[in-house]
Amino acid sequence: MMNEAKRARTSHSIHELIATRWSPYGFDARPVSESDLRSLFEAARWAASSYNEQPWRFIVARKKDAAEFERMLACLVEGNQAWARRAPVLALAVARLHFSHNDKPNPAAQHDIGMATCSLQLQATALGLSVHPMIGILPQRAREEYTIPQGYEALTALALGYAAELDALDDTLRRRDEAVRLRKPLSELVFARTWKRTAAWVEDPTGESS
Amino acid sequence: MMNEAKRARTSHSIHELIATRWSPYGFDARPVSESDLRSLFEAARWAASSYNEQPWRFIVARKKDAAEFERMLACLVEGNQAWARRAPVLALAVARLHFSHNDKPNPAAQHDIGMATCSLQLQATALGLSVHPMIGILPQRAREEYTIPQGYEALTALALGYAAELDALDDTLRRRDEAVRLRKPLSELVFARTWKRTAAWVEDPTGESS
Repeated sequence: MMNEAKRARTSHSIHELIATRWSPYGFDARPVSESDLRSLFEAARWAASSYNEQPWRFIVARKKDAAEFERMLACLVEGNQAWARRAPVLALAVARLHFSHNDKPNPAAQHDIGMATCSLQLQATALGLSVHPMIGILPQRAREEYTIPQGYEALTALALGYAAELDALDDTLRRRDEAVRLRKPLSELVFARTWKRTAAWVEDPTGESS
Repeated sequence: MMNEAKRARTSHSIHELIATRWSPYGFDARPVSESDLRSLFEAARWAASSYNEQPWRFIVARKKDAAEFERMLACLVEGNQAWARRAPVLALAVARLHFSHNDKPNPAAQHDIGMATCSLQLQATALGLSVHPMIGILPQRAREEYTIPQGYEALTALALGYAAELDALDDTLRRRDEAVRLRKPLSELVFARTWKRTAAWVEDPTGESS
């Protein structure tokens, strides 16, 4: 169900999937079907990457396997454990740090994990699911728990499932999940000719966009 | 126009936008409207980021401003200049390297540029446009050309526009743009319990997905 407070207040027209994607703190207990899980990671699989390296690997734990879920939860920083334990599925996104074709460092590895994660998020949105990525994890703990080899490193964790109804949340989570999504204005993000000079077309002087 | 060779050969159902996104080498000369440019960067603007830092900034150059276009083209490595000069629009994606709220290094900065770029790519797909991100740039040259301050760094360049008809391309670009898109199988990407152990649900033993 769409949380209308979370629809982006856009200044210019964007695709519905992008406008309605958001990252909840509160998740419903409802499990995610295996078919949907396959679609989520299939979407990540088809993201773009430098040299088509596909530096992304995922380790996934579902709540129905309670011991595995707790193992993965323990790889998050405490502040994230507090809310992420509500999610029915957790995943670690692990980056391959070197290129396969020449074994040199891949300067795009983290960037490309971000691309794959965004693709997964938007697929989730299409399925009525939500994903909350976290940089706040314990990479060394993840390495030990899952025998992640040198040359790879856990970068983020993903909490995924169905966003909870606001009424089902305690005050802290509810306040987070009912807050309006805020962004810097486009004029502070898109420049031309030199740093901090807003591109002229950003201002839409013609009223061309609606 | 959809290049059917570039539709992902998916193993599991994914959203049409994600299946049809691809990164061309060959671009058509047709310019991109200002309204579409606004939508592209608006889509980037609404991506998720750690602490909602929104560490992305973009500097944009259009071919109709020939001197500016050449200035930006010179910030790419030579191999990328060769094909990217066909695109009607170039952009540099610049990362803010520290958090605004505490001035500490933002370990998600590059990852979050990737999230914003994926969002922009999928918005482009929705508009019939294509985006090709490149990590092969000259960050120091970009810093000098655009007075990018310390604390920020150019991470990627984006070539964007309409993908060229294959018949309009020379053999080298045509071969790249007509090649089938390849990805590792999902079984090599999604693990459970330990490294390299494929999650059981990835294999789809029930034939639940089609």
